[in-house]
Amino acid sequence: MTNVIVIGAGGVGTVAALSLKTNGKANVSLVVRSDYPTVVNDGYSIDSIDYGKLSNWTPDHMFKDLNHAFERFPDKFYDYVLITTKNIPDGPKHSRLAEIVRPILERQSEMSKDKRTNILLIQNGIDIEKQLWEQYDTQKYNYTVLSGIEIVGSHKVGPGIIHQMAHEKLTVGPFDMNDAVAIEAAKNFVPLYLNEGKNECVYDGNTRLGRWKKLLYNAVFNTTTALLQIDTSRSIDFGKDGKSTLNEIYIPAMYELQKLAKADGVEIQQSDMDFMLSITHTVLFRPSMCVDVDKNQLTELEVILGNPVKLAEKYNVQIPVLRMLYYLLVVLQNKIKESHGLIKYDEQKLKIVQQLTD
Amino acid sequence: MTNVIVIGAGGVGTVAALSLKTNGKANVSLVVRSDYPTVVNDGYSIDSIDYGKLSNWTPDHMFKDLNHAFERFPDKFYDYVLITTKNIPDGPKHSRLAEIVRPILERQSEMSKDKRTNILLIQNGIDIEKQLWEQYDTQKYNYTVLSGIEIVGSHKVGPGIIHQMAHEKLTVGPFDMNDAVAIEAAKNFVPLYLNEGKNECVYDGNTRLGRWKKLLYNAVFNTTTALLQIDTSRSIDFGKDGKSTLNEIYIPAMYELQKLAKADGVEIQQSDMDFMLSITHTVLFRPSMCVDVDKNQLTELEVILGNPVKLAEKYNVQIPVLRMLYYLLVVLQNKIKESHGLIKYDEQKLKIVQQLTD
Repeated sequence: MTNVIVIGAGGVGTVAALSLKTNGKANVSLVVRSDYPTVVNDGYSIDSIDYGKLSNWTPDHMFKDLNHAFERFPDKFYDYVLITTKNIPDGPKHSRLAEIVRPILERQSEMSKDKRTNILLIQNGIDIEKQLWEQYDTQKYNYTVLSGIEIVGSHKVGPGIIHQMAHEKLTVGPFDMNDAVAIEAAKNFVPLYLNEGKNECVYDGNTRLGRWKKLLYNAVFNTTTALLQIDTSRSIDFGKDGKSTLNEIYIPAMYELQKLAKADGVEIQQSDMDFMLSITHTVLFRPSMCVDVDKNQLTELEVILGNPVKLAEKYNVQIPVLRMLYYLLVVLQNKIKESHGLIKYDEQKLKIVQQLTD
Repeated sequence: MTNVIVIGAGGVGTVAALSLKTNGKANVSLVVRSDYPTVVNDGYSIDSIDYGKLSNWTPDHMFKDLNHAFERFPDKFYDYVLITTKNIPDGPKHSRLAEIVRPILERQSEMSKDKRTNILLIQNGIDIEKQLWEQYDTQKYNYTVLSGIEIVGSHKVGPGIIHQMAHEKLTVGPFDMNDAVAIEAAKNFVPLYLNEGKNECVYDGNTRLGRWKKLLYNAVFNTTTALLQIDTSRSIDFGKDGKSTLNEIYIPAMYELQKLAKADGVEIQQSDMDFMLSITHTVLFRPSMCVDVDKNQLTELEVILGNPVKLAEKYNVQIPVLRMLYYLLVVLQNKIKESHGLIKYDEQKLKIVQQLTD
């Protein structure tokens, strides 16, 4: 049986574990941090549009952290490691992707010379795989990074309580389009995850285009609403004559992304942009980054907008609207860091005297 | 004796009344709205860098509103009407400049065919005089509009309690540089206001340049800090590498203003911009618009940034950074309006169903 471990038990990770468990072809482990005491006793309460209402639900195993998993099953090799945490490379070191996967990469590369660890990043943003490639040699650690693009309106609404409001669609593919090994691993994952008539799971050989398309929403609507702490509908209707947010921010920012994606080798279509616009004014909705700011939590700014800004510099593409959003949000992110004690600011010397994120 | 009435008894209006009263050549009336019950009994407590610590201070007269003034002194003609309220043309109608001056303009133009009402606007922003010119014929109402640019760190810290932390400098001149009558009225005002060795009051024939220079601060630092709800020092130090706020927002925005002012016929110097930059990182400070947002109060967005955006369209000058700040802040202003009940938003229909600012 294929062993899969899901790291991150929020709305996305729990639904991923549920999809795998429902499918039944994998042995499913879930790393649960804060909710562990609750779910180890009572399991999960899940209200899912795909799987119905479930009480006391659990995957095959639940662990407090990876060491807990290693202690319980010292000989177990996890074929797929799904990462469903938020990706915040400028956050506290222990919460960063490279640190999250370090224990399992180090352990499994020592356990077996033959078996490969397939790390599937079900996370937002672009160029996130580079956080691993820059840190860990793929040969030495014998691993592959796969790209998972998830559409699912799923939220943890309390400890061990999950509401999934939209049908799940997971697109899986290699980060490196030319990596035959990664392509095979991604293709093999689909039949483990897909539950016909319930969720969707498809293979896509060009997930980078999918990531750019998702940025049409995340880099534009997530960012602006986070900055203004407002839902998407109001953000539009509260513009000058109900038009300026669309005409001066959202639409130009999407065209900037289209231009940037093109420089990056993929084509965003007008219909992709029209689709994103069409879904922003259908129901009252606060995008995830806006909710993060509401809760005074660090945002996925760097992978959603910081990396596109870097790419724009690399390709020499002008993206003034996105850059403004980014540089405003950088200040907001640091304000949130300060409130968490990750930055210490001396109000007499007027300077940052300590950065605890390194 | 010259009769002067000051409308607006916040930090600026109270110091204006105090400067006039100290000078002694004018009979000074002050219209006090919310604090009237307090100050009519106890007067003002003022801690002023220019005038020292004063208890139970009052000008010659205090009124709840203009009608109260008219009732008390039916035959009195006010030569100068100083407006020291915030200028929020998109706020509730009763609070707008044209409505504030309406009673006194109508009354005084009927009282005397010979005497002229000189309205001195000690307010931020540009093109604010047009709010009066568009509404009231200068011949029919026999009035002049004068421009007052005030530098004074003065705040109302409680009912009837004023802290003035910076030396006052009031620059007075005509809005219309070619209006000999306005020039004379402005020149005549200076000796009523100036207290040698205490405050400064100077005549300036080109206050439009002064207004552009003040916008270097107000349209750039006020706006950005209001959007981010952060002090000026942190807004800089919390940028990427401590540089992006300066290099991507503040400095480009100031150059945009320089370009726009040039199209408007006045020259902002590099030294003017250097000065503004130099004062933003000397002491922990939240600009007034930031404080307004902190307090969930409507901001002077339209006169500070909305009017420059209109001028940029008129002159066809590109100001992308200022435009982005403006269109983001428009949403924020409407969010504040909604919280005050000035906008009603239907969360089912997803539209504004009522605007109570008209």
